[in-house]
Amino acid sequence: MMKLLISFAGIVLAMAISFATAASLDSNSIRAQAKNFFEPLPKTMPGSEKDTAEKIALGEKLYFETALSVTGTQSCNTCHRLDENRGGVDNVKVSPGAPKGTMGTRNSPTVWNAGFHFVQFWDGRAADLKGQAKGPILNPVEMAMPSEEAAVAAIKKAGYEAEFAKVFGPNSLTYDNIAEAIAAFERTLITQDRFDAFLKGENNFSQEELAGLKAFMDNSCTICHSGPLLGARLYQKAGLMKPYPNQKDQGRFEATRNEVDRMMFKVPSLRNITKTEPYFHDGFTHRLDEAVKIMAEHQLNKNLDAQTTASIVAFLKTLENQRKFKRSTK
Amino acid sequence: MMKLLISFAGIVLAMAISFATAASLDSNSIRAQAKNFFEPLPKTMPGSEKDTAEKIALGEKLYFETALSVTGTQSCNTCHRLDENRGGVDNVKVSPGAPKGTMGTRNSPTVWNAGFHFVQFWDGRAADLKGQAKGPILNPVEMAMPSEEAAVAAIKKAGYEAEFAKVFGPNSLTYDNIAEAIAAFERTLITQDRFDAFLKGENNFSQEELAGLKAFMDNSCTICHSGPLLGARLYQKAGLMKPYPNQKDQGRFEATRNEVDRMMFKVPSLRNITKTEPYFHDGFTHRLDEAVKIMAEHQLNKNLDAQTTASIVAFLKTLENQRKFKRSTK
Repeated sequence: MMKLLISFAGIVLAMAISFATAASLDSNSIRAQAKNFFEPLPKTMPGSEKDTAEKIALGEKLYFETALSVTGTQSCNTCHRLDENRGGVDNVKVSPGAPKGTMGTRNSPTVWNAGFHFVQFWDGRAADLKGQAKGPILNPVEMAMPSEEAAVAAIKKAGYEAEFAKVFGPNSLTYDNIAEAIAAFERTLITQDRFDAFLKGENNFSQEELAGLKAFMDNSCTICHSGPLLGARLYQKAGLMKPYPNQKDQGRFEATRNEVDRMMFKVPSLRNITKTEPYFHDGFTHRLDEAVKIMAEHQLNKNLDAQTTASIVAFLKTLENQRKFKRSTK
Repeated sequence: MMKLLISFAGIVLAMAISFATAASLDSNSIRAQAKNFFEPLPKTMPGSEKDTAEKIALGEKLYFETALSVTGTQSCNTCHRLDENRGGVDNVKVSPGAPKGTMGTRNSPTVWNAGFHFVQFWDGRAADLKGQAKGPILNPVEMAMPSEEAAVAAIKKAGYEAEFAKVFGPNSLTYDNIAEAIAAFERTLITQDRFDAFLKGENNFSQEELAGLKAFMDNSCTICHSGPLLGARLYQKAGLMKPYPNQKDQGRFEATRNEVDRMMFKVPSLRNITKTEPYFHDGFTHRLDEAVKIMAEHQLNKNLDAQTTASIVAFLKTLENQRKFKRSTK
């Protein structure tokens, strides 16, 4: 009897499979499923309510200001590049610092949408953009300024005093306000992509992109990559199901020394992912298809076939930023 | 041909099922699988290196000190009860505050193991135990002291000045040191359970407990409930696959107003879970079996049958704290 039932189930299953393969994927039903997991990007970033055009312009200048590094050669933009359509990163595994021979320890994350992240840095050691901005300027393997005072002096020497006064009031050229202005500028960096148009009702996805979105959801990638950013709202263990290849960097544990934080990293956002290679905290791979397969294997214990992987990559391309960055200050 | 193959697969499947039911579960192989996800609790908590016996004793006194509430009727222990073997909670949905008619908004979490959590509170709005301790004393729906100064004055009046001087030096009765002493005491509250004995090599699990642990892993509960605490290392969306029944409390979003944080809550630790009902941030249910079923349904889109649910509950009982709390101060 059991055997008979299972045979019958097998026939039904076979029919279902052939039907699904032949039928075209329906935008509306996949969109309905997607809305359980994703939302379009908000139009403004938290904290931007009080940002003025002047503060943002000052922040933009500072973002590109090489005087903020000890050698006068690096700005925020050196590692988080907004020019050349690079997706807010420098596309190298880890980034060289200003002092000769220094090298960062983790892959430079993108500045686009960063202000939406639930915490900053791969390990969450800063709460917001302002806290983040204060880090690299003083980090000896990044911009390597010897102190906050030295950074303030350099910016004063570069002639910013009057502009700070205009934005923040008299005698306001402080380290805190340098970071605040940079953060204000960064709060304007919101991507725009085809996926949000799809979520809002446009039938702009190809069959392969629909298949990729469906595979992304059906394979539970959404457990970590959900919400408006497809990630960047939680930590997760790198190598949950199978140890991550590189165990040297223990993630959040390096900052907290709390055993629960071992190998825990911020789950990155997938917005604009096609432009932010190499992938993972150590820049392990430059290939997005390989990154997808590694995540499936190490996080979900799944072996994705080539076709499914390709369709997920096709879906991820719909997250590519179509908003070009253009400097508004010289 | 396909039909034939599937029938054959059906027979194999049926055989496999009956074999699995008959065969006994092997402790060693399940332990090997478990070690991918879990670790025994560390012996000490982060930050406890400089805790002295005097500081801990002072903290214990303060933990039970009702002078810290505006009415003189509530202590930390009122909602996070260490007495009566209550598991560090008060076992009500939300807790009444000191001022008449006030009521907390979220379920009081357990104080046991709290210092291992990656952040404090359901929404992570404090980084550590010290930051946490400063909250409820001033919260108008909890202990409701009007100010830090009022709390310090109350503790001074209660005769603590000399003891603070002994622990922290002269003139050290400050709000910050009150919180620091309480945190030092809380850093001693580490549970001990049968699961850690199992992880360390003891074959102390029944067949049902083994089945439950296996079901817990095979059903991917481990995606969120992993590490030494079986949770408490990440946020997750309550209602990832199916909306959480109560949408009034939007979790971390209430604190950050960042859209990515909507319905994100700290994943609770499952250590001592049998003693910390009711469950979830709103104390939705007092029944652990119901809590397990709700999680499977809303987070993983799985409908657990009664037997699987019962075995998972049996496994969760192995996490029950066997260390009794005994006050060492009067």
